[in-house]
Amino acid sequence: MKKKKNLKTRLLIKRKMKIFNMDDKREDRCGIPEIVFGEKDVDDLVKIIVEIFNKKGKVIITRIEKEKKEKILDELKKKNFDGKIKYNERGRVLVVYKAQKVEKFGKIGIITGGTADINVAEEAKETAEQLGCKVVSVYDAGIAGLHRTINAVKKMKKEKVKCIIVVAGMEGALPSIVSGLIDVPVIAVPTSVGYGTGEKGLAAIMTMLNSCTSVAVMNIDNGFGAAVMAYKILRTSYI
Amino acid sequence: MKKKKNLKTRLLIKRKMKIFNMDDKREDRCGIPEIVFGEKDVDDLVKIIVEIFNKKGKVIITRIEKEKKEKILDELKKKNFDGKIKYNERGRVLVVYKAQKVEKFGKIGIITGGTADINVAEEAKETAEQLGCKVVSVYDAGIAGLHRTINAVKKMKKEKVKCIIVVAGMEGALPSIVSGLIDVPVIAVPTSVGYGTGEKGLAAIMTMLNSCTSVAVMNIDNGFGAAVMAYKILRTSYI
Amino acid sequence: MKKKKNLKTRLLIKRKMKIFNMDDKREDRCGIPEIVFGEKDVDDLVKIIVEIFNKKGKVIITRIEKEKKEKILDELKKKNFDGKIKYNERGRVLVVYKAQKVEKFGKIGIITGGTADINVAEEAKETAEQLGCKVVSVYDAGIAGLHRTINAVKKMKKEKVKCIIVVAGMEGALPSIVSGLIDVPVIAVPTSVGYGTGEKGLAAIMTMLNSCTSVAVMNIDNGFGAAVMAYKILRTSYI
Amino acid sequence: MKKKKNLKTRLLIKRKMKIFNMDDKREDRCGIPEIVFGEKDVDDLVKIIVEIFNKKGKVIITRIEKEKKEKILDELKKKNFDGKIKYNERGRVLVVYKAQKVEKFGKIGIITGGTADINVAEEAKETAEQLGCKVVSVYDAGIAGLHRTINAVKKMKKEKVKCIIVVAGMEGALPSIVSGLIDVPVIAVPTSVGYGTGEKGLAAIMTMLNSCTSVAVMNIDNGFGAAVMAYKILRTSYI
Amino acid sequence: MKKKKNLKTRLLIKRKMKIFNMDDKREDRCGIPEIVFGEKDVDDLVKIIVEIFNKKGKVIITRIEKEKKEKILDELKKKNFDGKIKYNERGRVLVVYKAQKVEKFGKIGIITGGTADINVAEEAKETAEQLGCKVVSVYDAGIAGLHRTINAVKKMKKEKVKCIIVVAGMEGALPSIVSGLIDVPVIAVPTSVGYGTGEKGLAAIMTMLNSCTSVAVMNIDNGFGAAVMAYKILRTSYI
Amino acid sequence: MKKKKNLKTRLLIKRKMKIFNMDDKREDRCGIPEIVFGEKDVDDLVKIIVEIFNKKGKVIITRIEKEKKEKILDELKKKNFDGKIKYNERGRVLVVYKAQKVEKFGKIGIITGGTADINVAEEAKETAEQLGCKVVSVYDAGIAGLHRTINAVKKMKKEKVKCIIVVAGMEGALPSIVSGLIDVPVIAVPTSVGYGTGEKGLAAIMTMLNSCTSVAVMNIDNGFGAAVMAYKILRTSYI
Amino acid sequence: MKKKKNLKTRLLIKRKMKIFNMDDKREDRCGIPEIVFGEKDVDDLVKIIVEIFNKKGKVIITRIEKEKKEKILDELKKKNFDGKIKYNERGRVLVVYKAQKVEKFGKIGIITGGTADINVAEEAKETAEQLGCKVVSVYDAGIAGLHRTINAVKKMKKEKVKCIIVVAGMEGALPSIVSGLIDVPVIAVPTSVGYGTGEKGLAAIMTMLNSCTSVAVMNIDNGFGAAVMAYKILRTSYI
Amino acid sequence: MKKKKNLKTRLLIKRKMKIFNMDDKREDRCGIPEIVFGEKDVDDLVKIIVEIFNKKGKVIITRIEKEKKEKILDELKKKNFDGKIKYNERGRVLVVYKAQKVEKFGKIGIITGGTADINVAEEAKETAEQLGCKVVSVYDAGIAGLHRTINAVKKMKKEKVKCIIVVAGMEGALPSIVSGLIDVPVIAVPTSVGYGTGEKGLAAIMTMLNSCTSVAVMNIDNGFGAAVMAYKILRTSYI
Repeated sequence: MKKKKNLKTRLLIKRKMKIFNMDDKREDRCGIPEIVFGEKDVDDLVKIIVEIFNKKGKVIITRIEKEKKEKILDELKKKNFDGKIKYNERGRVLVVYKAQKVEKFGKIGIITGGTADINVAEEAKETAEQLGCKVVSVYDAGIAGLHRTINAVKKMKKEKVKCIIVVAGMEGALPSIVSGLIDVPVIAVPTSVGYGTGEKGLAAIMTMLNSCTSVAVMNIDNGFGAAVMAYKILRTSYI
Repeated sequence: MKKKKNLKTRLLIKRKMKIFNMDDKREDRCGIPEIVFGEKDVDDLVKIIVEIFNKKGKVIITRIEKEKKEKILDELKKKNFDGKIKYNERGRVLVVYKAQKVEKFGKIGIITGGTADINVAEEAKETAEQLGCKVVSVYDAGIAGLHRTINAVKKMKKEKVKCIIVVAGMEGALPSIVSGLIDVPVIAVPTSVGYGTGEKGLAAIMTMLNSCTSVAVMNIDNGFGAAVMAYKILRTSYI
Repeated sequence: MKKKKNLKTRLLIKRKMKIFNMDDKREDRCGIPEIVFGEKDVDDLVKIIVEIFNKKGKVIITRIEKEKKEKILDELKKKNFDGKIKYNERGRVLVVYKAQKVEKFGKIGIITGGTADINVAEEAKETAEQLGCKVVSVYDAGIAGLHRTINAVKKMKKEKVKCIIVVAGMEGALPSIVSGLIDVPVIAVPTSVGYGTGEKGLAAIMTMLNSCTSVAVMNIDNGFGAAVMAYKILRTSYI
Repeated sequence: MKKKKNLKTRLLIKRKMKIFNMDDKREDRCGIPEIVFGEKDVDDLVKIIVEIFNKKGKVIITRIEKEKKEKILDELKKKNFDGKIKYNERGRVLVVYKAQKVEKFGKIGIITGGTADINVAEEAKETAEQLGCKVVSVYDAGIAGLHRTINAVKKMKKEKVKCIIVVAGMEGALPSIVSGLIDVPVIAVPTSVGYGTGEKGLAAIMTMLNSCTSVAVMNIDNGFGAAVMAYKILRTSYI
Repeated sequence: MKKKKNLKTRLLIKRKMKIFNMDDKREDRCGIPEIVFGEKDVDDLVKIIVEIFNKKGKVIITRIEKEKKEKILDELKKKNFDGKIKYNERGRVLVVYKAQKVEKFGKIGIITGGTADINVAEEAKETAEQLGCKVVSVYDAGIAGLHRTINAVKKMKKEKVKCIIVVAGMEGALPSIVSGLIDVPVIAVPTSVGYGTGEKGLAAIMTMLNSCTSVAVMNIDNGFGAAVMAYKILRTSYI
Repeated sequence: MKKKKNLKTRLLIKRKMKIFNMDDKREDRCGIPEIVFGEKDVDDLVKIIVEIFNKKGKVIITRIEKEKKEKILDELKKKNFDGKIKYNERGRVLVVYKAQKVEKFGKIGIITGGTADINVAEEAKETAEQLGCKVVSVYDAGIAGLHRTINAVKKMKKEKVKCIIVVAGMEGALPSIVSGLIDVPVIAVPTSVGYGTGEKGLAAIMTMLNSCTSVAVMNIDNGFGAAVMAYKILRTSYI
Repeated sequence: MKKKKNLKTRLLIKRKMKIFNMDDKREDRCGIPEIVFGEKDVDDLVKIIVEIFNKKGKVIITRIEKEKKEKILDELKKKNFDGKIKYNERGRVLVVYKAQKVEKFGKIGIITGGTADINVAEEAKETAEQLGCKVVSVYDAGIAGLHRTINAVKKMKKEKVKCIIVVAGMEGALPSIVSGLIDVPVIAVPTSVGYGTGEKGLAAIMTMLNSCTSVAVMNIDNGFGAAVMAYKILRTSYI
Repeated sequence: MKKKKNLKTRLLIKRKMKIFNMDDKREDRCGIPEIVFGEKDVDDLVKIIVEIFNKKGKVIITRIEKEKKEKILDELKKKNFDGKIKYNERGRVLVVYKAQKVEKFGKIGIITGGTADINVAEEAKETAEQLGCKVVSVYDAGIAGLHRTINAVKKMKKEKVKCIIVVAGMEGALPSIVSGLIDVPVIAVPTSVGYGTGEKGLAAIMTMLNSCTSVAVMNIDNGFGAAVMAYKILRTSYI
């Protein structure tokens, strides 16, 4: 049951473990690389991207619709910016980075209820991968077809994931079911999929907060936050 | 696949089917015997009980706590009232009736999530039985133990119930799961069991209204209403 | 009072009645043909349509605005898709099917309050018809003109419908009135018609959940769900 | 169609009509005798009662439970207070007055839905009578028995009331129905009767504010305010 | 203090007073000419306009934005429709009528808080005038400039209006102040003017429902309903 | 227009002005003596009182009902505690202190709407006085009697208060009116006085947050917080 | 510790201090120059601008998007309007003025949490400067980087600001932290930055109203109101 | 960085890791010993306790007030029940067990804001310890005294806890601050401590769900759920 960790990973992790110091930078303090919430003006975003890229060599920006991405890239081009670009369209995540590779050091699962929840799941997936997690995902495993839910959980067990992000809208019961079937931490992400009384994810988040099984809840559509939480959980094995 | 209906039942039902007439009494119009919501003063209730009993020979009163029942019976005794009494303590249902028997004419199921939902389930059960339904119930079949849920549904299939009342509090996901596993109508009753964001049944009703499977929803704790709805569904076989 | 059921219907129904088995398909388990909630990307929808059509020969898609329908048909055409198409514009329901006819096996009623509620009623009507129900509808029978409401109920009685879907926005009192006048199950569908405090159907759903007569409530604008529930109620006569 | 008004009434009214003056007293400005909201400490109430009584000869206090009334009377006795007392127990209204009689000058109606709404109706009735209105009331005319509602409206027409206060809890649809059947102003008072989603009158007030017929709405349980509004409407005939 | 009513008005009113009969038309029952809520499709509206116009000679349609009005008129033209048109742009009210004149028979006041409330006030004004009321209006009399409020009330007193519609958004305190200064009925209309916690008129309606002076409340932005209520109050003088 | 400040006050203030240092105590950092929110167990409170008293010589505890105060004093007596006691019963404020006097250094005003708001006003008054403010208060100046409101403001102007705490429940419009009539900062405190839609102060806080005049808002019933804010405003004159 | 005030400022202030008189203009009564909420039609705004400008020589209009500003200027040009223009694009504030300069007379601070809060902060800044305040601002000092928050507070201390406006969205905890570290009044402005449960600023305002340190709260996005409050606090030093 | 795990722990963990099987018991499926939510009738609880105790040798019951505990013990005594008892009064947790000891296998931290949050923290602490976690707790580290918060985090770093449960009421900002200062997972538990807008923990949960740092949220007062989540996180190191 001993961990296999290659050397580099352990060093990477170790560096992050030094005792907190008020003047340190955020990554060192909290273990999270710079991730920017993209609901800002293009001008502000470009300024922030360049600044962080120059200091850290990598910046992740969430909530960037395709059209906005184009505008950002245009602006960066005008500045002769030379970072590399990765864009996850469904997840609306933009990654700007230098050449270095992310070293993977753990495995998480992502399960979604319906097709419409995939965007949020992809935000989580892209973020988690950028943070160094391997991701196993099963989409469209909603409880209306309970056997699909059970199969998804079986896959997670087989893959030995250390925690599962469950993304669901409408009535949001999926995380409760998953958490009742498996013993790793379940992080529930309600999505704004729904209508009427469930509009904007209200029903889903209510369900998840009142789960009769053990789930920890993120804000509606917060795929990014769930990924960071999963990453932090994975890292506890190296402390 | 032909129905077996003994003669009396068919006559009873037939009588109720005559064309609506503005001056008719409620039972004839809507098929429901007189049921009184018990959250009234004892004095008002006693007056109502006596009046209906004298006209119809039977009255069902819901939401009567044990202590209130005692007061009502004391008052009735003072009036030399000679009706018979049945009291379901968990369901808080008081039945006052003359000698005639209710003839059973169909079968429904009741499933509950947790122990704390039983009171509402009993209100539904007592009411349904008084209306002439046979009731098959499985309590404590919440989704935290999914195999118990599945077993409950299997029992309902075996018993060939024609509709199922599902009573659940907390996150209220049980009706969605049940409805995904069986093809009879599911009537969902959220209960006021819960705390924090789910206090007073808010989370449960939200979940049920947004179910990704087909469920029809009653107000929080409205076990009585669910029983009437189930009874009406059973009766459609005789129209 | 015996049912008349022609042979085919009875066989169709019988096939659906076999005992539940975890590996079975959803239709067999829950009695509902594949119906897809259309609030998804066109690409996802086209993929789903083709897949289900090939397996089942029929797929119903709800919430498809006219413009979206055009896009879907264009995409299907590119794939040389040869299914037949039916589109209900007011109900926003798209049906893609092979040649076989739906056999009707029961009758339900639909009543609406105002002109603006018709879209939701049409979603229910189209869905119910696709599921094999005959539908009798009376639109614009709101309680502001109480005689129209009463006439609508009289028609339902005359037509011997086995359950009634009542669709209403604004203050949503129509289902309570209908249910007080007739003894078949009433399924209430609040619509998002309204403004101010009633915006998005909030007042209507509150009214329906607190009805002093017996009604079972669906989510706001959930005409589709009401149709499935009505269909399930009709089917109880054949179990 | 000319009014019959005896002289005294016309003089009483006339006195109230003089042009507003910042230093005048409230009654002269707004036409309403002093009415005190009783949810205050007994000590504060006694002080206020004595003060107003001495100045005006009459004071009406609402929201006084029986037990509180006793305490107030005890305190007044200690002070050798010599005002006359009228107490409406159901309406929880206490009137303290000198000998003069109120002259009646117009007629209003009050209709309630259920037995549990009577307390609020009595608050309205007592207040309206103290303000000089004749009151015709029909209790227990809820829409579950629509013929009772229609009979209540017929009585109001026959009695030629000039406005109707409609008091209802639960789903609160009664004022909409009444207003659809008669052409006098309808003042709707939601009551805190209800449970689950309708707890504390929320469903009732939502329904009333979104009525598809013309109703003006008071706060939940505000029988007193409805009476004042009715009184003001009656007085418009004398301006 | 005797009323001056010319003959025609009295006859008009008289006709409306006959005893209610279930088969009568709405105007006769409730005293309100046909007014149509305009949030419907253009096609539906045109159909309704023509139908009512042919039967009654007049129809009022509310909530018609300028652009929508143009479309309606285009459609009517295609049908060689020959009714006359009046359009109040700020109030978004469209009136379609034959030649006859409305006879005025009473006077009401309208006061608004801010410039942004004028649209709703104009809906009320146009509707009230179409119903035969004379209207005195003072706009922009919000409580931030209390002397303006007081002046507005003084004008209402001088004009001897029989009831006042007070239209206000933001914190909605204006009706409370007005009602504290004058003794005619005050009908409060909250508007959806506001932002943050007051967005969509929520703060305004809360304030009005809890007024410490006597006000009757309409739904948010319901200028039309307030006008009908004012008209009904005026008519009580003729019963 | 120059300030008169006696020496002691200036020194007291000066001491508080030194630059913030992470290890300093709260009073030095934020200028507020130790004030304890009293909704804790008696045991916890007694422990806290003794500890702070020994360090600082004074402690203010809010939200202490009379009965709870007795229990606390009993416990303190058992410990031979020798601090002096002041208890404001209406304000539910308990002060435990050594002999030294508070030096007054500025003047604020407190205005309340109704009698029922006085408790919260007294919490503010007691707290402000303990912090060294002189307090001018006018109770019962609600807007239903607008001349009383205007008189209250006139008094505040005459007394040259530097800021006004306005305490109001029900519709909570009083702060808006006051702030429209005077140019000192107005701190609004909604109270939980109210019923129906306004229950627990919801209407009042909504009104205040949306005031069309300039007011800064505290939480419902937070008289204590308003006093601290007023005190901080007074102190700005000495910075 | 004595104030330095040059003569002009003192006179300006003095003029504002004269005793309130009901007929006076608003500026004299409440000390605030005319500021217009810009969410009105362009035509209405232009009319108001010209009117106030002609009377007072200056008018400030808030909530004017760039595009709307252009339309207003076009309209003003057509009227040969000769006022000077200042436009703060981020803050959406338009100032129209004659030649006179504003004399500065005090200093406030503004701190924001994230980049997206800057617009509201700029509304506050522009307004405060127009009212004669010097403004020290630190943007992007959110609590996720606590050292930045602490540095911002240190700067405020060094600059000796007399009050601080803290602008924050999302969870809105920044004002609580700032107020715990410094002893000047903190005015909290929640912004509508956020999503899911925090959409439209709901979470932020809840946090601020429940702060465990002393903060006074403005409505969501009300940067303008916060500036007026800060200005009023500054002025207390001159009373 | 390698784990030290003694043999027994590893075996214990290993046993829990076997592949899920639908018929297995809950503990084996989800890794959580039987914990019972205590808000049930005493009779139901006693029955459940005896049943689980006999099967498993241990049962944990939460939400048991002192008085209820006494009643349960009395009932158990009557049945000659011989289990051992541990009762945590502040945490309201009752543990009934046979002789075996829990083997500790990891360390978590618990931080609370105020004294009133301790009860919920103790529920978490007791539960976590019963599940085999070592617990380091720092109470009363609320953000009003930011240095205390920082010291609490320093202690957690020094103790090398693997995750932190942060319990806070009122404005609930503590978890955001803690999570910004340390890189282990933070589980936020809002408490129902608060009043006015924050009553019942609403403000606290809103804040936590919208945290700008990474926190996962439990339902209000759900200390038990947080402990289970922490336990599951600890266990990921052994998978």
